[in-house]
Amino acid sequence: MKLATYKDGSRDGQLVVVSRDLSTAHYATGIAGKLQQVLDDWNFMAPQLQDLYDTLNNGKARQAFPFEPSRCMAPLPRAYQWADGSAYLNHVELVRKARHAEVPDTFYGDPLMYQGGSDDFIGPCDDVVVPSEAFGIDFEAELAVITGDVAMGATPAQALEGIRLLMLVNDVSLRHLIPGELDKGFGFFQSKPATAFSPVAVTLDEVGDAWDQGRLHLTLQSTWNGRKVGMCEAGPEMTFHFGQLIAHICKTRNARAGSIVGSGTVSNKDWSHGYSCIAEKRAIETIENGKPKTNFMKFGDTIRIEVKGGDGQSVFGAIDQKVVEAA
Amino acid sequence: MKLATYKDGSRDGQLVVVSRDLSTAHYATGIAGKLQQVLDDWNFMAPQLQDLYDTLNNGKARQAFPFEPSRCMAPLPRAYQWADGSAYLNHVELVRKARHAEVPDTFYGDPLMYQGGSDDFIGPCDDVVVPSEAFGIDFEAELAVITGDVAMGATPAQALEGIRLLMLVNDVSLRHLIPGELDKGFGFFQSKPATAFSPVAVTLDEVGDAWDQGRLHLTLQSTWNGRKVGMCEAGPEMTFHFGQLIAHICKTRNARAGSIVGSGTVSNKDWSHGYSCIAEKRAIETIENGKPKTNFMKFGDTIRIEVKGGDGQSVFGAIDQKVVEAA
Repeated sequence: MKLATYKDGSRDGQLVVVSRDLSTAHYATGIAGKLQQVLDDWNFMAPQLQDLYDTLNNGKARQAFPFEPSRCMAPLPRAYQWADGSAYLNHVELVRKARHAEVPDTFYGDPLMYQGGSDDFIGPCDDVVVPSEAFGIDFEAELAVITGDVAMGATPAQALEGIRLLMLVNDVSLRHLIPGELDKGFGFFQSKPATAFSPVAVTLDEVGDAWDQGRLHLTLQSTWNGRKVGMCEAGPEMTFHFGQLIAHICKTRNARAGSIVGSGTVSNKDWSHGYSCIAEKRAIETIENGKPKTNFMKFGDTIRIEVKGGDGQSVFGAIDQKVVEAA
Repeated sequence: MKLATYKDGSRDGQLVVVSRDLSTAHYATGIAGKLQQVLDDWNFMAPQLQDLYDTLNNGKARQAFPFEPSRCMAPLPRAYQWADGSAYLNHVELVRKARHAEVPDTFYGDPLMYQGGSDDFIGPCDDVVVPSEAFGIDFEAELAVITGDVAMGATPAQALEGIRLLMLVNDVSLRHLIPGELDKGFGFFQSKPATAFSPVAVTLDEVGDAWDQGRLHLTLQSTWNGRKVGMCEAGPEMTFHFGQLIAHICKTRNARAGSIVGSGTVSNKDWSHGYSCIAEKRAIETIENGKPKTNFMKFGDTIRIEVKGGDGQSVFGAIDQKVVEAA
């Protein structure tokens, strides 16, 4: 099934069930008002939502209405955890190669992951609000899962069983703030402003065979200012699958229901696939020509991130945002 | 007023109002079931809770019951943000001096802060569950505030206005996992297991003049295995006050209601005050004798963290925990 959260002026919005083709939606009122409630009590509520979803897909839902992504908040407008991995090692290799640094061997056995802010997510069509272009505004097109409860010590296989929903992410990054923050040693903070998510989050059955043991074998499309810059294959080059990423969290603690776990920038060794973040394009330019040529985003720039299924239809709806200056 | 969250088998527990002397409590049912609801709608709900608090303190609340800290969850059992600063630069100076490293000048103008996991906090008397003693188990006694909404770009003075509640923290740290994580550059993750908070969170009026422009001028007591090891003054040596810490978050994003912001380990230049984490004691030993003598915590160890007011009474109740091995 496909779930979204409609803006209604409240902090958590209103849960809606969205038809498979993303044409219609129906409020989940009577089952659950908020997605977090569903995640807190998945086994009880998910079957009820599935029934409504089936009815909606059959055109039998009597109070269905046209689905409008622009009315969406993030599926979880705020979350208790947002842990973002960097699971495509090619991305790390490129960025490091551009600055003549090696990738430590340990990076191939132990995922990179940072804890992100999760109190103020933005919707798929909300503006990306940044105080200054000088911060080096970049998009990062990623996949993410939302988990149920996964206990401390869970294996990657056990962690896979805890995945409830799948969605897209624009992990907006402020590149020029990153070096200073990493030098301080405490990780990203100001360099990661509010994160955006796709209009809908979907259960794994929605992608069929494209989901294979923690990896999504579909193409992630990134379109910057109307120009398609990335057609990256998300499956084969994901060094750590989502079960491994979740198990990384669970080495020393529990991951509780509603935890969002990101893949990091999707990246392919074959540069002809393009890029899922500008930093990677700049790294390639630096490797080829000694310096970057492509600039980061300007106010007014747009970014669209989407995945199409085997049938050519949009799976999650599109993240489609404009960058604007903070008031 | 003083607020706590009682365990009731649910994820968010039941909000209770606690008397000033911590002797009695009363369910806030009828006003709000959960603390996050209050933070989401503070101006409407706080006065109602204050009325109940006054009635309780006057001995007129008809369904009051004895307050038991052991029945408490963290005041916010899960939160949308846990951002922990390192605002006592003396702590940073000591740890760096022990390894012959300088403190960069920028550290005195720009706070250190990491994003912590906030999906699975533990209560004040809950066990600290760790998979292995070899991880280097340490406590960190800190203060924290819970905020309302604070907008992107807020000044430190504006951010101070957003503070709703004050509490104590045990920011459990796994010291031997930290160097490897910091080397990776993405900050703390596995080295920060579930965090514990004091039985009650209090409004600023509860500490009177001890609260002065973002700093709490009281003594933070840490008692390890029954031995008082820290009597640290929390006020004068806090390099960055809470308004500055919150403003640090807000440079590039909003901080939304229910954000928890920590002070980092409370630390004094005068070593006779003792220590609020074992790492600092070991740093002092290393500076004095070339190597640390004090070991980190073992399974079965206890840690008690408390602050007493000008009247000698416990302000927040005590964090009082035992370290145990993960099953």
